[in-house]
Amino acid sequence: MKPITLQEIADTLGISVSTASKALKNYPDVSEETKTLVKELAATMNYMPNSFAVNLRTKESKTIGLIIPEIVHYFFSNVIKGIIYQAEKKGYLIITLQSNESYQLEKKQIELLLSKNVDGILISLANETADVEHLKTIIEHNKPLVMFDRIAKKINCSKVVINDKKAGYTATEHLIESGCKRIAHFRGPLLPQNAIDRFQGYKQALKKHNLTFDPALVYTCNDMSFEEGTYFAKKLIQEHKDVDGLFVSSDLIAIGAITELKKQGFLIPEDIAVVGFSNWFMSSAVTPTLTTIDQPGFEMGKAAFKQIFKELNFRKKKETYTPKVIKLKTALVKRDSTP
Amino acid sequence: MKPITLQEIADTLGISVSTASKALKNYPDVSEETKTLVKELAATMNYMPNSFAVNLRTKESKTIGLIIPEIVHYFFSNVIKGIIYQAEKKGYLIITLQSNESYQLEKKQIELLLSKNVDGILISLANETADVEHLKTIIEHNKPLVMFDRIAKKINCSKVVINDKKAGYTATEHLIESGCKRIAHFRGPLLPQNAIDRFQGYKQALKKHNLTFDPALVYTCNDMSFEEGTYFAKKLIQEHKDVDGLFVSSDLIAIGAITELKKQGFLIPEDIAVVGFSNWFMSSAVTPTLTTIDQPGFEMGKAAFKQIFKELNFRKKKETYTPKVIKLKTALVKRDSTP
Repeated sequence: MKPITLQEIADTLGISVSTASKALKNYPDVSEETKTLVKELAATMNYMPNSFAVNLRTKESKTIGLIIPEIVHYFFSNVIKGIIYQAEKKGYLIITLQSNESYQLEKKQIELLLSKNVDGILISLANETADVEHLKTIIEHNKPLVMFDRIAKKINCSKVVINDKKAGYTATEHLIESGCKRIAHFRGPLLPQNAIDRFQGYKQALKKHNLTFDPALVYTCNDMSFEEGTYFAKKLIQEHKDVDGLFVSSDLIAIGAITELKKQGFLIPEDIAVVGFSNWFMSSAVTPTLTTIDQPGFEMGKAAFKQIFKELNFRKKKETYTPKVIKLKTALVKRDSTP
Repeated sequence: MKPITLQEIADTLGISVSTASKALKNYPDVSEETKTLVKELAATMNYMPNSFAVNLRTKESKTIGLIIPEIVHYFFSNVIKGIIYQAEKKGYLIITLQSNESYQLEKKQIELLLSKNVDGILISLANETADVEHLKTIIEHNKPLVMFDRIAKKINCSKVVINDKKAGYTATEHLIESGCKRIAHFRGPLLPQNAIDRFQGYKQALKKHNLTFDPALVYTCNDMSFEEGTYFAKKLIQEHKDVDGLFVSSDLIAIGAITELKKQGFLIPEDIAVVGFSNWFMSSAVTPTLTTIDQPGFEMGKAAFKQIFKELNFRKKKETYTPKVIKLKTALVKRDSTP
């Protein structure tokens, strides 16, 4: 028999969940009559309090651990929102930790979540993370692991990503088709796969359209800030007066770059056309509005939770499953920073 | 005797926490020798697995529930970051839920967190929340409750806030001292205490400086978006051509307003001086840079966790305590949108 829930007890007796809960805990402000009714129903219907205590029958805690590099970031906070939204629908709670882009902290947090007996772990890797042995621990503990956005290719688990290479290709090709001949790229840090893939997409588009790839036109951003955008824009126009296009791996950096270019008297898009990445809400608010690649954060969060939920169900039924790579669609959003 | 932790077992034997954990769980990839060593030490030293299972001795789950109106919001994501940062230091995990500014959802989430046996709850109220009976449930369940930013005055619990009235006063007085005579205010929604207090501070500053309060100069923002800023700026200059100052209850709305005012040919600050609220990182990036009130989100998160941790310790020692109201300092950040 499926155990009755506190909600069902409350509904059956026409009382609030909080009264039912207090009745079971013998609170003085609940009448003796209600206490008796609640306790009898709970006993007859096999009520099992739904706490963090691992359910002895199913061995579930109904909690999922989430490790994210940085919470204060438009894309990641959207992902968290999507994960929590979907988890709540399925009666799961999410424990969020922030790795702060640190490999050591990420490693420690995985140990912590495993020791707390979460049912599974969702993770997006820190920029610093090169060695991925710590992720294997999760699999060795027989817990489902789903990676999203910043993944490690060599870990055999499900992944939710966008096609970063294709998106980088699309962004660069849009600049080429707008007439740009000398296109610079402000890329993300060296380790994360998504920064590598966007850069590969940029190179591929140049090649496809018979434009020479010039490594001097590629600048590596490490802290992905507005200030980095202004800094590299200044450097770019000092070093390469002939640049007429710029593909930037994040909208924030792109907006920093545009601010600096405008300050120095350049017209956007007439002198230099710019494409960003992520479709941050500010990209439609700045002047000129920013052409960008829409990266669906909320959808990514929902998809990551859906996948781990699926894997938990496979395990319950003792069925085998093959890890999946889910690729979410991106789209070019054409605005005024390209002609 | 204080029970040994898994970390201490690992350190004593010079193995990793993950190996120690696997040894206890009889994983095949750990040697029999290691398993025996780990199990003997665990038995001798009273090892107790640190899972979500409520500790039978202390009755703690070492998890705190957090209900936040909106995760994708610069101020709130900073608060979450501060809470998680401080909680991790003290060995607590944070379960985050988003009320989505809905009273009904907020109520349901409190029931959910209580049923999951969290040790306490941190909450910032939804804009919709007027009735606060659901918060009393937490206190009746004998769990510590700490409210932050959007609080309910009549609930007897600890609160972490800024002095919104004083901050509103400071912002408005700065405009007056810059020479403004007709100052408009874009306020937040009608229910939240912080929007009321900022508005009161605005009124108080006008009165103090013998400027007439004109209700027609006050516009109520409900979704607190960039678009609302452009919308009300358009309305403002149509309806009141003589306005020379504007105090806006959020930076995002203020930036929306400035964008529209510039578009219509107004000079900022020469024609209209503008002060925002929160010190969002973009406020130093826009043109002109935005004068604003710095609202310390990360500090607020840390202070909220510190307070609930203190209250948990009082309870453990069975000492009584009086709820506290912690007021964090704000500061006027002078930039180019005021003369």
